[in-house]
Amino acid sequence: CPCPLPSGDTALSRLVRRLLSARRSLDLCLFSFSCPQLARAVQLLHRRGVRVRLVTDAQYMGLHGSQIGRLRHAGIQVRHDQHSGYMHHKFAIVDRRMLITGSLNWTTQAIQSNRENVLVVEDSVYVKAFQDEFERIWEEYNPANYSFF
Amino acid sequence: CPCPLPSGDTALSRLVRRLLSARRSLDLCLFSFSCPQLARAVQLLHRRGVRVRLVTDAQYMGLHGSQIGRLRHAGIQVRHDQHSGYMHHKFAIVDRRMLITGSLNWTTQAIQSNRENVLVVEDSVYVKAFQDEFERIWEEYNPANYSFF
Repeated sequence: CPCPLPSGDTALSRLVRRLLSARRSLDLCLFSFSCPQLARAVQLLHRRGVRVRLVTDAQYMGLHGSQIGRLRHAGIQVRHDQHSGYMHHKFAIVDRRMLITGSLNWTTQAIQSNRENVLVVEDSVYVKAFQDEFERIWEEYNPANYSFF
Repeated sequence: CPCPLPSGDTALSRLVRRLLSARRSLDLCLFSFSCPQLARAVQLLHRRGVRVRLVTDAQYMGLHGSQIGRLRHAGIQVRHDQHSGYMHHKFAIVDRRMLITGSLNWTTQAIQSNRENVLVVEDSVYVKAFQDEFERIWEEYNPANYSFF
């Protein structure tokens, strides 16, 4: 793979390490996902048998550099909205226990050039609120409910 | 003013009520700010004598519908970055005590049409991390440091 996992103590490597701590599940709710290193970490978890679910935005998933096609091709379940408004969340939940959320879209531009924040929260009140939102969206974006014009 | 403060129990009215609880200071770090109701709440606090400081993104502050000019005109201190990368934070700190952060840009489009999250946190560990980031940015974007080409 042309994109090795980041090492050292950069913000990206710390984020990747948090993700790779997943043992059972990884729920991703991401407006935009174009960072190859983060996609590689997600694929690695999928291959290890971690249950990965990914929700994304319909307008952004087809943009140049998007990793969504690659992740679908690898067998990861992806669902998207059907609205003109954005699915603008940017959070991940590891093992239904650790919430990773903030301003950061999972793009190379954001990681390299922007001023961003990422919160890592294990307080169950916050984790549950985001897990509930994830489950609502996952059901709402079930392909069985897609309508075609 | 053509944009009354929102009432009732919408997400926007709850956000406005949190802001209006400020008694001493309101620190705003906002990538994009075009929602007139939120601008009105910020102006109201400024008129009440609350110390308002606002950091924003240089590329987005001039876009159609931006409230930044109006807030500057009202006498509110505004600073912005000088980089091609985005100042992509979207957080507010009320009285150095309550952190309001998430995926939400303060735009009408985001409030009306997007799927978004806003976290309200009073845990001092999180509040301090964001307050420290605000102070760093406030100093870094001091107009005394601006360079003109």
